[in-house]
Amino acid sequence: MIFEVRVFYHQSGSKSREWPGRASNTDVIFEGMKKVSLTGIKPTGTPHLGNYLGAIRPALELAQTYQPFYFIADYHALTLTAMHNAPALRESIYQVAATWLALGLNPEEACFYKQSDIPEIFELNWILSCFTPKGFMNRAHSYKDKVAKNVADGLDSDENINMGLFGYPCLMDADILMFKSHVIPVGKDQKQHIEFARDVAHRFNNHYGKDLFVIPEPMIREETDVIPGLDGRKMSKSYGNTIEIFLEPKALKKKIGSIVTNSQGVEEPKDPDTCNVFKLFKLFATADQSADLAARYRAGGLGWGHAKAELHGVLESTFSEARARYNVLMADTALIDKILAYGAAKARPVAKTLIEEIRETIGIP
Amino acid sequence: MIFEVRVFYHQSGSKSREWPGRASNTDVIFEGMKKVSLTGIKPTGTPHLGNYLGAIRPALELAQTYQPFYFIADYHALTLTAMHNAPALRESIYQVAATWLALGLNPEEACFYKQSDIPEIFELNWILSCFTPKGFMNRAHSYKDKVAKNVADGLDSDENINMGLFGYPCLMDADILMFKSHVIPVGKDQKQHIEFARDVAHRFNNHYGKDLFVIPEPMIREETDVIPGLDGRKMSKSYGNTIEIFLEPKALKKKIGSIVTNSQGVEEPKDPDTCNVFKLFKLFATADQSADLAARYRAGGLGWGHAKAELHGVLESTFSEARARYNVLMADTALIDKILAYGAAKARPVAKTLIEEIRETIGIP
Repeated sequence: MIFEVRVFYHQSGSKSREWPGRASNTDVIFEGMKKVSLTGIKPTGTPHLGNYLGAIRPALELAQTYQPFYFIADYHALTLTAMHNAPALRESIYQVAATWLALGLNPEEACFYKQSDIPEIFELNWILSCFTPKGFMNRAHSYKDKVAKNVADGLDSDENINMGLFGYPCLMDADILMFKSHVIPVGKDQKQHIEFARDVAHRFNNHYGKDLFVIPEPMIREETDVIPGLDGRKMSKSYGNTIEIFLEPKALKKKIGSIVTNSQGVEEPKDPDTCNVFKLFKLFATADQSADLAARYRAGGLGWGHAKAELHGVLESTFSEARARYNVLMADTALIDKILAYGAAKARPVAKTLIEEIRETIGIP
Repeated sequence: MIFEVRVFYHQSGSKSREWPGRASNTDVIFEGMKKVSLTGIKPTGTPHLGNYLGAIRPALELAQTYQPFYFIADYHALTLTAMHNAPALRESIYQVAATWLALGLNPEEACFYKQSDIPEIFELNWILSCFTPKGFMNRAHSYKDKVAKNVADGLDSDENINMGLFGYPCLMDADILMFKSHVIPVGKDQKQHIEFARDVAHRFNNHYGKDLFVIPEPMIREETDVIPGLDGRKMSKSYGNTIEIFLEPKALKKKIGSIVTNSQGVEEPKDPDTCNVFKLFKLFATADQSADLAARYRAGGLGWGHAKAELHGVLESTFSEARARYNVLMADTALIDKILAYGAAKARPVAKTLIEEIRETIGIP
């Protein structure tokens, strides 16, 4: 197993050290003075350029500063009825795993695992739920939003809300506290989740007089530029205006072709700063490339087709190698299974050690 | 380990077959055509005579008809803030384990384990919560009672209600469905829990088109005679009027001495049917013994001290041997640990097999 995985990473250009023998040594995971960062990835569809720039790239950059833990939050996806569909859930899990691996997640340096492979998380979820006031969940933003929508629609306030949807912040607390995470990169809208985790960690530590849990800190992602979708609105699955990261060149060309532009003719000088094509180009190009294309916009003689071809070019040069890796992985899900099993083998001893400490502390023989 | 446990049971008079080799064979657990009965025991204090007659004795009798599973619901106890106390929880777990074993639970014939030793239950708890409408929990009797009390006290409706207290019926569903239990003996007030478990089992089976879960049936316990406490009210920990099962003879005598009687003198004829001492006596004595004592009540010349001595005698003859076993166990909690570990080793393969089927069914690779 290790051999195949290592070969894959050699081929794909990642540096590789010897793997065997590290899998069950928690000290090695925490070697040096690096703090732990934790990133959860909910598998709910094919990742797009908005996900890449807003979440994936910044999360991967954490590996330079922190000991990164990345996990596929597969059991969080189960709160959504759309994921009460086995083929969709399975496909989505493999897609996100392959995407992150293809984009540079190094499963040797990082700890990369499926949430569902760490049963201790679900035991901790129960324990923490007994120390979490129900009022916290009543006040959770996402729950309140759903209730408000139900009420506006004239429905029962808890219509279509299952207990997983209501209680998932507790499971997040378990995800975070299980691995003594110091830093959790989140969007502004998720800051409350970290506040809940901090509260329950403090509450538990104080009650039992023992610093079992590390108090996590949110790392609020800076407001990145809004990433425009095909129609110019923010790129989002719910708007149906996304460009998936690993589209094949032809499909990518077709998608780019559907980006909304104005009706200026080829010869007219154009304003790059109000153009969706240019805005996307700039996010992936170097400063020189951007300045060059902006000059061609302003000079006239650049048609929308040319601009779109430039965007196609820069996306291809950004993603074509990663796409090849992605395709190798998606064609060999057994390899993904092995990589995730390797990650679980690294993560579980950490979880087991902590859960044993917790059981001892609360009085479970 | 097996040796010591078996020796204990030889000594204590239970019949014993060979144990080794059965621990991981689920077929053996389900051998024959017996249906599974499941009984959960929440460790929240020292068991008393009311617990014995109302719950323990009828549950132990199930072993004649069913393949019984008994489990110590230690993680349910954690919903109570009184059990956020490690020594109290630990002691309580050992007390209920020792009580049931001393009273005849045969860990060889039955499956007897701690809930906390079956991590698959907590994974299943999460899965089921994603298929359980929050509205069910809103309507759970025990939650509604707590809300009503809070409101009556002028408090926030969710005051002092933690997420464990709110969501425990989901965990009960997992307890029940994990072991394909056919029959759950419950009091009338717990019938709703079985209805929830039936609903989520149906819902899940139908959604995925697979009979993964056995639909459990409640076995409503017949209204047993009210067991009077020291003051004549129903024996209950909350009234502080209990007689613990395994009091030593002297302590038992003192407790019995505090049973409230009327002020009739020794020579006066007395009415057995309105006497708390006689009511308790009758619950443990043979019909002949009861008729005999009733006649002595009516004849006069029997003082309250004599009546109480009769009650002491019948309780001693009922429980003294079991108390000796109880004391052996409580003096050797490592032996209890071994017995419960043996039970977990029998139960886990059943849980693992089902959770693997469920993961496959919902699309977790």
